[in-house]
Amino acid sequence: MNEQPLILICNDDGVEAPGLRYLIESVADMGHVIAVAPSEPRSGQSAAITVNSPLRIKRCEDIAGAEVYAVTGTHVDCVKLAMHTVLADRKVSVMLSGINHGSNAGNCVVYSGTMGAAFEACMIGIPAIGFSLLHHSWKADFSQCGRFVRKITRAVLENGLPAGVCLNVNIPAKCIPKGIKTVKSSEGYWTEEYVDYKDPQGKPFYFLSGQFVDRDANNEATDNYWLDREYVTVVPVRPDPTASDLIPSIGAMLGEECQ
Amino acid sequence: MNEQPLILICNDDGVEAPGLRYLIESVADMGHVIAVAPSEPRSGQSAAITVNSPLRIKRCEDIAGAEVYAVTGTHVDCVKLAMHTVLADRKVSVMLSGINHGSNAGNCVVYSGTMGAAFEACMIGIPAIGFSLLHHSWKADFSQCGRFVRKITRAVLENGLPAGVCLNVNIPAKCIPKGIKTVKSSEGYWTEEYVDYKDPQGKPFYFLSGQFVDRDANNEATDNYWLDREYVTVVPVRPDPTASDLIPSIGAMLGEECQ
Repeated sequence: MNEQPLILICNDDGVEAPGLRYLIESVADMGHVIAVAPSEPRSGQSAAITVNSPLRIKRCEDIAGAEVYAVTGTHVDCVKLAMHTVLADRKVSVMLSGINHGSNAGNCVVYSGTMGAAFEACMIGIPAIGFSLLHHSWKADFSQCGRFVRKITRAVLENGLPAGVCLNVNIPAKCIPKGIKTVKSSEGYWTEEYVDYKDPQGKPFYFLSGQFVDRDANNEATDNYWLDREYVTVVPVRPDPTASDLIPSIGAMLGEECQ
Repeated sequence: MNEQPLILICNDDGVEAPGLRYLIESVADMGHVIAVAPSEPRSGQSAAITVNSPLRIKRCEDIAGAEVYAVTGTHVDCVKLAMHTVLADRKVSVMLSGINHGSNAGNCVVYSGTMGAAFEACMIGIPAIGFSLLHHSWKADFSQCGRFVRKITRAVLENGLPAGVCLNVNIPAKCIPKGIKTVKSSEGYWTEEYVDYKDPQGKPFYFLSGQFVDRDANNEATDNYWLDREYVTVVPVRPDPTASDLIPSIGAMLGEECQ
């Protein structure tokens, strides 16, 4: 029992999300699985942490033999508090985040709670993988995800990942994926970001909406290009955003000394 | 009037934060300044966006001749909603975030709302700079920050920044900084992350705490090294976390095709 891999599973859609259940079921036979997820959905919360409120963690019903816990904070809090409580700093073999209901390809990775949780595990030194299905519905069909989840998780359990790097995996919906492409995030922007409303008093309010415009739509080095063509995409990502290649030129622009 | 630079200022400590006021005052004569900040503090919220609640924006009292607005969302919402409403997609010359009450050096950059807002501006194509003072207090002394804020802002107004890159500037507290160092983020981890409590019913709850352990404490290529030595540090950072250098090796590990 002690030689089984210890697999930590988190997500940002919350402990009730079907994607969490599917992820647990997909890897239940690959190790000892412990899932720690937010008690409420936390989509779009990036790597947010709870700094000024207390947190609680409570045991929920097991899923496929895995212990499941709910935390009253963010997905990043889940990783941190799991290490502090139920895992008691035991060595985790791999951390899996998701399966997210919706894409985390392209610029979405910046806002992604799924990847925020993976970033946290990565910074602790745990090999981490975020999985996302390109379908927002709570009733999304995850049935094509399992073999890719298992293949990628197995590869990481066997080979590890370079220090400071985790994986952002996106899975196309409503198709039988044709294979895996390891690529970079596509770059784009949103237009028509808000829908404008008036309240009964005539005062304006706004809801986030928006259309993603992919500047890399024809760039086959990018994730959205291959997702559109029914491939699973893997982007290796670093939580540390330092642009090391630009340190000399920015330094020259600012001057090493300013006095 | 139209030829003045248009300067957008945001923060994550909220519209009432002294650091926001100080930042506005520091650059008030450098252009037409518009500040849009969260109505409540949003520290540690990374690049979080509000996806399922309506947002409002309201005009507050001017500061040093600058229009000031409060948004009922996150710092990232502030940037997006500023573009949608008060700026109406006008061309912004530079976006400044902060001055944050507390460090965003080392791994803190991942959780930083100050930098989350700068990331958003950067992804829209606006040259962006996040400023943080290494002092959490609401009564922190910002008086040494002004000349560095002005020098770095002026350099970016004159030279721009490479596409997809923004600056993470940290300023040491309680000293007269000796100069500027352009470096990378130091890498570390937190220990003793939580303080454990029992509620009156004897049930546990937890508050985030923690000590940062700097693995790069003796590495003079890193920000915390120079902040300890009373220098202002500048780290060029990319919102896009793709680890492009590792795409070939991760691709080889996973196989290009999985069928």
